[in-house]
Amino acid sequence: MRRFSLFLVGITVAGCVFARIFSASAQSGGDASPIFITKIPAGYRDWKLISVAHEEANLNSFGAVLGNDVAIKAYREEKFPFPDGAIIAALHYRFVASDENNKAFGQPQSFVAGDPTNVQFMVKDSKMYARTGGWGFGHFNQDGTPGGEALLKTCSPCHAKASRDFVFTRYSR
Amino acid sequence: MRRFSLFLVGITVAGCVFARIFSASAQSGGDASPIFITKIPAGYRDWKLISVAHEEANLNSFGAVLGNDVAIKAYREEKFPFPDGAIIAALHYRFVASDENNKAFGQPQSFVAGDPTNVQFMVKDSKMYARTGGWGFGHFNQDGTPGGEALLKTCSPCHAKASRDFVFTRYSR
Repeated sequence: MRRFSLFLVGITVAGCVFARIFSASAQSGGDASPIFITKIPAGYRDWKLISVAHEEANLNSFGAVLGNDVAIKAYREEKFPFPDGAIIAALHYRFVASDENNKAFGQPQSFVAGDPTNVQFMVKDSKMYARTGGWGFGHFNQDGTPGGEALLKTCSPCHAKASRDFVFTRYSR
Repeated sequence: MRRFSLFLVGITVAGCVFARIFSASAQSGGDASPIFITKIPAGYRDWKLISVAHEEANLNSFGAVLGNDVAIKAYREEKFPFPDGAIIAALHYRFVASDENNKAFGQPQSFVAGDPTNVQFMVKDSKMYARTGGWGFGHFNQDGTPGGEALLKTCSPCHAKASRDFVFTRYSR
C-alpha cells in the first residue's frame, strides 16, 4: 500500500481507454469493487511532461508524470474535471545520488533517476470507471507484470483525497 | 556560478540550432570565448522526457530534462557523441514540499515542482560551437531574460567533466 501511495499522491498516474479491463467481482455481479487497468497504454513514454515528483520514506522514488494529448490539453487550458480519454502516466525510478555529478559540483548535492521500478496509470472514463471517481487505475512492475488487486484497491480511496478530480499532480509550466 | 552549475551536472540542457548567436569577443576577432544561445528554442515544452534531477544545497531545485527528436533518437539508440541538431532542455523549478500530498500520505515525505526558476539549453553544432565541445549553451530566467556572459562562461568547463560528450544526464527508460 505504501508503494502504491506514491502514485496516489506525489506522482499521479493513468491508464488506457483501450485497455482490457478486469474485475472478478464486477464481472460476477457488480458490487462496489473498482475496475483496474491490465494493459500498459501504448506509446506512453513519448507523452509530454506534466511534472516531476519525489517521495521519501519507504518509497525513496523519483518520478516523472506524463500525459497523453487529452490530459495535456486539459491541464494547459485548466479545464477540469478531466474529460474522458485523458490518461496520466507516472514513471517511477529509484532516487539515487549521482557520483559523477557530485564530483563535478565538488560536493554531494545531486540526485538523479536510478533504475526504473514501476509505471502507474490513470485513465479517465466517466462511465466505465464510475465506481472509482471516473478513473481507472493501473500499476505495472518493471518486468511488465501488473500490480495485484489488493494494491490497486488502495488507489481510488487515496486519490479521492485530492482537491481536484482525483489527481494530485499539478502541471509545471 | 552555483546556479548554472545545476544545469551543468544534475540537469543537462540545450539550445537551438536556429538560435541567433552572440559573443562580443568572437565577433570582434575570435578568441577562445564561447558562443552562447540567446533565443529560446520554439516548442521545447512539448519535447519528450529524457530524465529528472534534483539538486540540494543552494540550488534546491527540481528539474525535468527534455530532448528534441534528434537528441531522443541518439539517447534511445545509444549513439554518442550526439549528432548535430540535438538539443537538450533542462526545466528548473523550486523543490518544495507538498502539503496536499503529505496530508494524503499521513506523513511528510512528498516533494513536487514549485515555481519555475529558469530553463537551460544545450545545442549540438560541432562547427558553430567547436570552441565549447561542439555544444552551445543557454540560460533563460523565468521572465525570459537570458543569463549573463559571466554565468554562461561557466557551462562549458563544467560540462567538459562529463564522461560522455559534455552531457551528464542519462536517459531514463
